[in-house]
Amino acid sequence: MAEPRAADATIGVCYYPEHWPEAMWLEDARRMRAAGIKRVRIGEFAWSRLEPRPGHYDFGWLGRALDILHGEKLEIVLGTPTATPPKWLVDQMPDMLPVDARGRTRGFSSRRHYCFSHAGYRRECARIVKALAERFGGHPGIVAWQTDNEYGCHDTVLSYSHEALVGFRHWLKERYGDIHSLNEAWGNVFWSMEYRDFAEIDLPVGAVTETNPSHRADFHRYSSDQVAAFNRVQTGIIRALSPGRDILHNFMTFFLDFDHYAVMKDLDIATWDSYPLGSLDVFPGEMVHKAAFARTGDPDMQAFHHDLYRGAGRGRFWVMEQQPGPVNWAQYNTDAMPGLVRLWGLEGFAHGAETISYFRWRQAPFAQEQFHAGLNLPDNTPDRALGEVERLSADLAMLGPLGQPAPAKAALVFSYEAAWFLRVQPQGRNFTYVEQVFAMYRALRRLGLDIDVVGPHADLSSYALVLVPPMPHVPDVLAAALVNFEGTLLVGPRTGSRTASHRIPDNLAPGPLAGVLGVRVTRAESFRPYSAVSVRYDNEVFAFDRWREFVVAAPGTEVLAETQDDQPALTRHGRAHYLAGTPDKGLLERIVERLAREAGLSVAPLPPGLRTRRRGIYRFVFNYGPEPVDISPHFPDKDFVLGAPALDVGGIAVSRFFAGS
Amino acid sequence: MAEPRAADATIGVCYYPEHWPEAMWLEDARRMRAAGIKRVRIGEFAWSRLEPRPGHYDFGWLGRALDILHGEKLEIVLGTPTATPPKWLVDQMPDMLPVDARGRTRGFSSRRHYCFSHAGYRRECARIVKALAERFGGHPGIVAWQTDNEYGCHDTVLSYSHEALVGFRHWLKERYGDIHSLNEAWGNVFWSMEYRDFAEIDLPVGAVTETNPSHRADFHRYSSDQVAAFNRVQTGIIRALSPGRDILHNFMTFFLDFDHYAVMKDLDIATWDSYPLGSLDVFPGEMVHKAAFARTGDPDMQAFHHDLYRGAGRGRFWVMEQQPGPVNWAQYNTDAMPGLVRLWGLEGFAHGAETISYFRWRQAPFAQEQFHAGLNLPDNTPDRALGEVERLSADLAMLGPLGQPAPAKAALVFSYEAAWFLRVQPQGRNFTYVEQVFAMYRALRRLGLDIDVVGPHADLSSYALVLVPPMPHVPDVLAAALVNFEGTLLVGPRTGSRTASHRIPDNLAPGPLAGVLGVRVTRAESFRPYSAVSVRYDNEVFAFDRWREFVVAAPGTEVLAETQDDQPALTRHGRAHYLAGTPDKGLLERIVERLAREAGLSVAPLPPGLRTRRRGIYRFVFNYGPEPVDISPHFPDKDFVLGAPALDVGGIAVSRFFAGS
Amino acid sequence: MAEPRAADATIGVCYYPEHWPEAMWLEDARRMRAAGIKRVRIGEFAWSRLEPRPGHYDFGWLGRALDILHGEKLEIVLGTPTATPPKWLVDQMPDMLPVDARGRTRGFSSRRHYCFSHAGYRRECARIVKALAERFGGHPGIVAWQTDNEYGCHDTVLSYSHEALVGFRHWLKERYGDIHSLNEAWGNVFWSMEYRDFAEIDLPVGAVTETNPSHRADFHRYSSDQVAAFNRVQTGIIRALSPGRDILHNFMTFFLDFDHYAVMKDLDIATWDSYPLGSLDVFPGEMVHKAAFARTGDPDMQAFHHDLYRGAGRGRFWVMEQQPGPVNWAQYNTDAMPGLVRLWGLEGFAHGAETISYFRWRQAPFAQEQFHAGLNLPDNTPDRALGEVERLSADLAMLGPLGQPAPAKAALVFSYEAAWFLRVQPQGRNFTYVEQVFAMYRALRRLGLDIDVVGPHADLSSYALVLVPPMPHVPDVLAAALVNFEGTLLVGPRTGSRTASHRIPDNLAPGPLAGVLGVRVTRAESFRPYSAVSVRYDNEVFAFDRWREFVVAAPGTEVLAETQDDQPALTRHGRAHYLAGTPDKGLLERIVERLAREAGLSVAPLPPGLRTRRRGIYRFVFNYGPEPVDISPHFPDKDFVLGAPALDVGGIAVSRFFAGS
Repeated sequence: MAEPRAADATIGVCYYPEHWPEAMWLEDARRMRAAGIKRVRIGEFAWSRLEPRPGHYDFGWLGRALDILHGEKLEIVLGTPTATPPKWLVDQMPDMLPVDARGRTRGFSSRRHYCFSHAGYRRECARIVKALAERFGGHPGIVAWQTDNEYGCHDTVLSYSHEALVGFRHWLKERYGDIHSLNEAWGNVFWSMEYRDFAEIDLPVGAVTETNPSHRADFHRYSSDQVAAFNRVQTGIIRALSPGRDILHNFMTFFLDFDHYAVMKDLDIATWDSYPLGSLDVFPGEMVHKAAFARTGDPDMQAFHHDLYRGAGRGRFWVMEQQPGPVNWAQYNTDAMPGLVRLWGLEGFAHGAETISYFRWRQAPFAQEQFHAGLNLPDNTPDRALGEVERLSADLAMLGPLGQPAPAKAALVFSYEAAWFLRVQPQGRNFTYVEQVFAMYRALRRLGLDIDVVGPHADLSSYALVLVPPMPHVPDVLAAALVNFEGTLLVGPRTGSRTASHRIPDNLAPGPLAGVLGVRVTRAESFRPYSAVSVRYDNEVFAFDRWREFVVAAPGTEVLAETQDDQPALTRHGRAHYLAGTPDKGLLERIVERLAREAGLSVAPLPPGLRTRRRGIYRFVFNYGPEPVDISPHFPDKDFVLGAPALDVGGIAVSRFFAGS
Repeated sequence: MAEPRAADATIGVCYYPEHWPEAMWLEDARRMRAAGIKRVRIGEFAWSRLEPRPGHYDFGWLGRALDILHGEKLEIVLGTPTATPPKWLVDQMPDMLPVDARGRTRGFSSRRHYCFSHAGYRRECARIVKALAERFGGHPGIVAWQTDNEYGCHDTVLSYSHEALVGFRHWLKERYGDIHSLNEAWGNVFWSMEYRDFAEIDLPVGAVTETNPSHRADFHRYSSDQVAAFNRVQTGIIRALSPGRDILHNFMTFFLDFDHYAVMKDLDIATWDSYPLGSLDVFPGEMVHKAAFARTGDPDMQAFHHDLYRGAGRGRFWVMEQQPGPVNWAQYNTDAMPGLVRLWGLEGFAHGAETISYFRWRQAPFAQEQFHAGLNLPDNTPDRALGEVERLSADLAMLGPLGQPAPAKAALVFSYEAAWFLRVQPQGRNFTYVEQVFAMYRALRRLGLDIDVVGPHADLSSYALVLVPPMPHVPDVLAAALVNFEGTLLVGPRTGSRTASHRIPDNLAPGPLAGVLGVRVTRAESFRPYSAVSVRYDNEVFAFDRWREFVVAAPGTEVLAETQDDQPALTRHGRAHYLAGTPDKGLLERIVERLAREAGLSVAPLPPGLRTRRRGIYRFVFNYGPEPVDISPHFPDKDFVLGAPALDVGGIAVSRFFAGS
Repeated sequence: MAEPRAADATIGVCYYPEHWPEAMWLEDARRMRAAGIKRVRIGEFAWSRLEPRPGHYDFGWLGRALDILHGEKLEIVLGTPTATPPKWLVDQMPDMLPVDARGRTRGFSSRRHYCFSHAGYRRECARIVKALAERFGGHPGIVAWQTDNEYGCHDTVLSYSHEALVGFRHWLKERYGDIHSLNEAWGNVFWSMEYRDFAEIDLPVGAVTETNPSHRADFHRYSSDQVAAFNRVQTGIIRALSPGRDILHNFMTFFLDFDHYAVMKDLDIATWDSYPLGSLDVFPGEMVHKAAFARTGDPDMQAFHHDLYRGAGRGRFWVMEQQPGPVNWAQYNTDAMPGLVRLWGLEGFAHGAETISYFRWRQAPFAQEQFHAGLNLPDNTPDRALGEVERLSADLAMLGPLGQPAPAKAALVFSYEAAWFLRVQPQGRNFTYVEQVFAMYRALRRLGLDIDVVGPHADLSSYALVLVPPMPHVPDVLAAALVNFEGTLLVGPRTGSRTASHRIPDNLAPGPLAGVLGVRVTRAESFRPYSAVSVRYDNEVFAFDRWREFVVAAPGTEVLAETQDDQPALTRHGRAHYLAGTPDKGLLERIVERLAREAGLSVAPLPPGLRTRRRGIYRFVFNYGPEPVDISPHFPDKDFVLGAPALDVGGIAVSRFFAGS
């Protein structure tokens, strides 16, 4: 691993010199500097220019671009071009193409046209990355490398190719040793699905009806492992040939198809691509909510990912692509309200981002992303976002070094495997992991808390309050951590309901948490909204909105809330609470607020779009709207460095916070 | 055919010893007996255990299981394992796999991965069934055999494989003799679709636009015939090698892809798999209705199938799988309200079921149905349903022999072919056979009537009232029966509008019923709800909600209702009535009630969820809700054997009924 | 080109003698004459009868049919049978079949089973057309030929076959010359999509994500060109062998997949198939609107196509198929209100149709269109439509020669390429060309105006008012015409936003119209209804409902309307207006009415379903409903030839109009 660098809060931009006449490059670089931009990502889609013919490299233009940028004191992140293999390579080995769940090969003509399992393509990637790193590994302008681009985008983690089949069989043999163990673990006796040999196993797709959930769960694991292995090929080469540079990858919003913690083992910094408006448009949500925040973005969605990737990055994270205006890929692509481009940037820094990098320097006048705004228009006049970046740059200069984000006392435990298991058997069509996780995150954040999102292997000992969203399989390491956890714990439904092999545990749910939680789950039902189950809590009536369980409380377990039919809805055993269903918004807020207070946290319930994060000596406050807000009733701070208590929609205030506030 | 056995009303269970350690089997059997269970279905998914390698049978474990069950005086239904061929067999002849309408082979990894047309697979089925029947045909514990499992489940009747194509061509040659007759029957001149040879004919799928409806209608017929032929292979072997046992198959809910009357020719008992909550969730229906009955099931859906399969079984039917709690396969899987597991059981017996068999003894902790409840939890503690089964057992003991179901005076004529024809050319997207049939059934049943659902070949002479839902092609035998029918007749729209070849009859609709009904249909329209046509009847205004026809009434035909534009909506010719559209609920109820009274039936209109059926000396009354009901205004009976006039939701009352009530 | 014939207003019918016994033909012909029918279309689906075996023609029956029709003085349109190649031909060259976007071959068993790119099929078409034209080219009864039938129906313009791939590569080489120019034009550097040779280019389908919009735009162009080339093969033969006859093709409703202007270069008359009720059912529209006109049809939809195809036909157009009652192909197929069959016919004549031809003489009792009404029922008794046709015939006789349609002073510029570009990158899911075009047409027509719909190459000099719906690429010829245009101009959003290669113009949108319009567009956003942008205009508040742009007004450009955030919404530069978003109905009506008045047009705003068109000395007025209307407040005419000022729903009035009214 490279040593952490001294970066504190810098602005970056994504730049594609190969799209523009070389004569424009120097002026581009100078204008970047003038706008306060210090870092530039470059090169990640340029394979056809770096190797126009098989084996014939053309690195000259890139060298010249790097020199120009470096000459203007811009720090460079060099991307490997493996997300866009050129046509001649695909024609050389067409079986490198990914295959979809219906058996159709997914061809050339866009990007990400490769199967992660394909050994031949991995070799080609090693070759081009090695050539690049040999040529540029020591370039003084390069501070970091980005591997590939947005692993898994366009649904490419799961590929049903022949190479994936062969790889999956080997992987299963590694995992289970002999076929009898696999048959037993999966329960293949069920419908005579027993195999006599690993070579008999198909990919879990295209069957007459639902395949074995254990089969699918393992294929998710296998596919996730291939992403990590694919990435590792590149990081190994870069570490050897470009020492001292950070290596990073740009992850995405609510993307759960592979285990990011596993990929991060080989990387130094987690970065992500933040498109607040596009993301709000395409992710599940109520119409009225989407309407309220259509031009500002969801007030919690960016923060969630900052906290998630800060965790995945072991404290180090960037936004590698920040939305500068309308994008091109959502169903509907609204414009950002003026000021939001700056707000999103400052919010990223507030959560600890080392760099916020805007995508892209100049709007492309051709190809797929013509409708994607940039900092400059295609005619090279400044677009609105450039002015906001300049203002952000001034903000940073005024604030000075920001220091570390304030340590969080509340944590949410996040698991990629949980998402896979809940996809494999949702049991109700409205049950998705991401919605349950995000609802818990939002309930915490509306209390004004600083939050960590941590993986299942995290040390929980520093937290006063831990929330565990539905996690069917609880790994041993997490079970042990929860057994030893001394703070306040809230565990969501379905947790511990499956073993690693996706079977029901011998002691039923919550499996390894039975002792900690003091409950045993005997039955679960899923339902449509009209069949919601009402819940009495705190002298009010709320509801489980899509899922409820019947639990038997062990002796010593207290029932804090009950359903309409007098079943336990919320239990407490010591400081460990179990939620026997999916709470509606009001119930979840009420529970989380009470637990946060009991855990001794300083709680300040906030209006819908008002949010806060503390970093170093500063409190940052953001008003996502939909109304102007006077923040003084919510925060005791008076020493405003930026903004004032009266915040317009899109408004930002930064104050020095009082210790303990 | 085997002689009918003395069974009157027994409880059964589905049991999978191969899923559990042999050490548990004896205790399982004893606990079954203790709960009042008398019959056990076993073996239907166990091929990979019965023949782990090609030609190497392992029947020992099954023999031991049968002996243990028989030792506890449990009567056994042995299933043939042909719904789940093992992987080695599929790998031996991969062309046995079914092919979907898009040309994709449907692979291994779940169940039902075979094409009904495949001769090789039929030979393999004959082989395994022969081996099983040779080994166990004379076992004293076996009272019946089940062939395969849920024919057609997961959309497997229609397969577009090469074997199906070859078979279809032969079948057409048998049906039409020469290609000219086929061209003529189908009207292939229409778009130059004429063939010169049967070998030119494709399956009616994958064309540029809609294929010839005659082509599709015949492919439905062909495919249905393959199911019967496939089943016959097994019944022939079992009859020879296991004499004196009943042979049955377990059919499904609202499943119309093959002609069950045809398959029943080779079987002794019709059984079906009753999942009231899953079925309500997935079948068409209004939200408000689904909401009202989400945890009890539709008040008429189970009864409909009891009556349908009692008819198909020539009086003999079972429920082979009865829902014990939440299932795993609906879009949403609610829990049954406590008491409903017992209610569904008693209702089945009220309709004449010989056996109600619960699925399954113990919830499986692995594979596809982990979320499907059983009588026992995976940790072998009793689940709620076991207590309800015990109570049902006590109910039966108290009631004593139930005798024959009361003979019905009202009949509904049901036709699988009608369903196929209406799928082939619905002409309006909201026109489905099942909804029209079920609406008529519900209208009869809310009057408190006992009902028979009969096939097109049934003798109608014993009925006072016969309803015919839309039946495009009226077979000669039914036309003759209706011509001779002396009771009150109500015929739905579209009836007689097509010939056997799916052409418009020379005399237009209603074709062979023109004389009986005294009408001629000149035009039809389908529409969305907003274009409903209002209908004046009985001094009130109702509507045709999705379909209406223009009919010309012959001399002597009376017009009983008219549309807003003064067209005949309901006509009467003698005692035969024609309904020239799809009535809304109010209109259908009004018409059916009036006709039932005119037919001399004793009519007692019931609240929405209150339903009744008479068997032997008893009247059974069931309250599906959604409100408690005092049943005394509706029934004159006073001698309550079970329950009382005040029925909670889920409540049951059984009384001795007065003759003629 | 053939000379225009003297046809003024005649009635026709589509007739299929091959479906009926020869003994019926003479009587059919006599009854046609008696009903006032003068023209008969025949033969267009009869290939399997014309050539029952490869190379064995059977033209005898057709000759006899032609003779009988001609003997009754019926003028004949003979169709070429190439829309329905027979099975033996498909079996000879199965690669003639079209391939869908998912790579599935679209087989025989319906119609249009051919790929426009297939050279072998073109040769076969030439062969059969030549044989037909040699045999019947000189037949005195034949006044016109129809090529094929409904080009593109069932989504057949875009085919992804191997022949299409090969053809597309050649076409690209023709267009771009060398591969570097193509890479440059498409911007293939973007994602390393650069090609080294035309042979590397795939069809723009089946890729991992969105393909290059330039790639898709060119494939649309290529595919459209194939339709024209395919058609030209036939017209060349017919012109040579059947001189003096018109050649025509029957186009469809809102069908935009190929450039009809290009195909019309080889044809004499544009004809179209008018199905008002089916079209209303399947095209986008609000429920409340569809409900109001469910049994009359949309009040502007037929007129739009009359005006569109009159333009495409350089003044000459027919309705080749006119709906006579319910059809079979919409989602729901309502009946026409009595009188509408006549109304639709008269409206066609009012717009200048030479012939209105009803589809079909007699309802088919077999095959796919059994539910499609005709003038006669399958049992050969007259259906309702026949009476309406007789009445229409009497109307025409009474009116005498109709003369030319009144010259329009208002024009709408229509572009097929615009539709392709907006499909390729809609940028918002609710943005469709057809809705934007039709909204503008409706806004003009509700003013009582006569309208021309013209192509991008039209001479605009005779118009006082021109509307240009969103047209991303403005061809040079249109740009020049608009620069020189002296009337009032309204240009919709997105116009001029792309070059011919689907790139953003160097000067940004509106590209070549920047000077004319005096604006520069810097940004665009799309949105859902809840994010509509309000617009102040004329002292009222309206909205942009799905799209808005940020424009910079040049000096001298006036801002006539502003958005809620004070951006220009409507600008004026000289007499040229730019609309910077998609207006809601109220805003569009207000703007168009004001501009029409400013342009000096005589404007008479009409109630929702009342519409008018002038031809020769007559004003025709049609009431589509949904209410009866007294037309006297709207029109000054008093001299009624047909009907009266009080019009029922479906009512028609024809008056001699005062000059200038």
